[in-house]
Amino acid sequence: MECIEHRACFGGWQDVYRHASSVLGCTMSFAIYLPPQAAERRVPVLYWLSGLTCTEQNFITKAGAQRYAAEHGIAIVCPDTSPRGEDVADAEGYDLGKGAGFYLNATREPWARHYRMHDYVVHELPALVEAQFPVTGERAISGHSMGGHGALVCALRNPGRYRSVSAFSPIVAPSQVPWGEKAFGAYLGADHAAWKQWDACELLGGAAEKLPLLVDQGADDEFLELQLRPQLLQAAAAAAGHPLTLRMHPGYDHSYYFIASFIGEHLAHHAAALRGQAGVPRG
Amino acid sequence: MECIEHRACFGGWQDVYRHASSVLGCTMSFAIYLPPQAAERRVPVLYWLSGLTCTEQNFITKAGAQRYAAEHGIAIVCPDTSPRGEDVADAEGYDLGKGAGFYLNATREPWARHYRMHDYVVHELPALVEAQFPVTGERAISGHSMGGHGALVCALRNPGRYRSVSAFSPIVAPSQVPWGEKAFGAYLGADHAAWKQWDACELLGGAAEKLPLLVDQGADDEFLELQLRPQLLQAAAAAAGHPLTLRMHPGYDHSYYFIASFIGEHLAHHAAALRGQAGVPRG
Repeated sequence: MECIEHRACFGGWQDVYRHASSVLGCTMSFAIYLPPQAAERRVPVLYWLSGLTCTEQNFITKAGAQRYAAEHGIAIVCPDTSPRGEDVADAEGYDLGKGAGFYLNATREPWARHYRMHDYVVHELPALVEAQFPVTGERAISGHSMGGHGALVCALRNPGRYRSVSAFSPIVAPSQVPWGEKAFGAYLGADHAAWKQWDACELLGGAAEKLPLLVDQGADDEFLELQLRPQLLQAAAAAAGHPLTLRMHPGYDHSYYFIASFIGEHLAHHAAALRGQAGVPRG
Repeated sequence: MECIEHRACFGGWQDVYRHASSVLGCTMSFAIYLPPQAAERRVPVLYWLSGLTCTEQNFITKAGAQRYAAEHGIAIVCPDTSPRGEDVADAEGYDLGKGAGFYLNATREPWARHYRMHDYVVHELPALVEAQFPVTGERAISGHSMGGHGALVCALRNPGRYRSVSAFSPIVAPSQVPWGEKAFGAYLGADHAAWKQWDACELLGGAAEKLPLLVDQGADDEFLELQLRPQLLQAAAAAAGHPLTLRMHPGYDHSYYFIASFIGEHLAHHAAALRGQAGVPRG
């Protein structure tokens, strides 16, 4: 593991590391913010999953989350959004292949060899982080758009692994929208039965743990009606009796200006859960 | 004037406009953050001047300043760093020509025709902003690196025009460092007498107004010793009896992670001055 960026930020350190991933079979970069408290004790970790086209850089440069992480004493780990490298399969378009791993384990070629972002994000990366940095085993997870989908799916598939989960503008029902249909068709094949285990709306019914979901959505998001469709999550949560706080924000779009505006409330939500308090967000 | 970006952010709006500049003889873009208070009353304006290679985008995407601007009810206007367009002179290297206007009025060809960033930033842009947006005539100014130089020089050359001034990692003595020597030699010619009116350390002795200077500098800034040399500003301020708060921050570098970490304190400093309070920063 090699440190490739090391920058003071809000009294802590915003670092970027490069390492060999055995799960993905390639070299990966991830970012980690260590708050000032990490100089003296182990701190819990929020995993942030970014959206289509992003790398580990977008969130750390644009979201302004370090201020809140420093206030609450939480580390933030940001993985890349897909496997990387010249021998990794790719496709035309920003919504399949590199930058578009969808946080699942692909089963179809040419994707199955490298595209195992679920296992990387849920298992390999936390094991590395927990072995190498001053962090506890307490984890929270959040993300944006494709990464919001990833956060919800990682939490729903892995009961007990996260103390809290939240999402900005998530793709809540990938099986029913164009982004998800294209990606799932390629990564998982045509059989829609295999898609259900990677779809938050499908997973809600069988969730073994009723971890409350906090979802913020811009009401003027340009992808709202075609790709995001939060009302499907609302219906699925109601049917499953799963606690969901869905907040619609008039005027806000899909950009990082939206994330920046509300990331402080998400950090507070995760901090409350990581402290062992009831992590119920305000409605 | 044409609005090319309009995004909700911390209850206000982060907009970008394009307009024809008569001072610069080209089309320019600038960003303006309008805090929520601007929906109900006129608000004062902080002008932010960015550093080498930047456009109007860097500060608005990376500094996280909108949160504080929304708290204090201050608009933030970010101009570009040079004239732009195909017929605007340019040079090899990132430190001369486009992206490197140094906030002065050039007198030498091929630069003199378009490179009049001082007059644009101090006069034309504020006149436009004050005519078109819900703002008062109260102004503050700040910036980073080349833009920190610009903020100090604009304030020192124009007594009474700004209520407060601050800078991050400014080029305090361009006449004495490589970045400034290259730019001033090209824009102003070889005669160093002409350089003095664009050099903060030189201007301090004759300043008609003792506006307190707030300067933050990373102690691990990679440009500290060669290009920035804050001790020259400290000596010039002492000799002139000019109030200066220079804060050195161990560990911090030249990046936006440094700006983000302390921009909240600068907004508070400017807010105090714009409210008519003594704008004396903590030491």
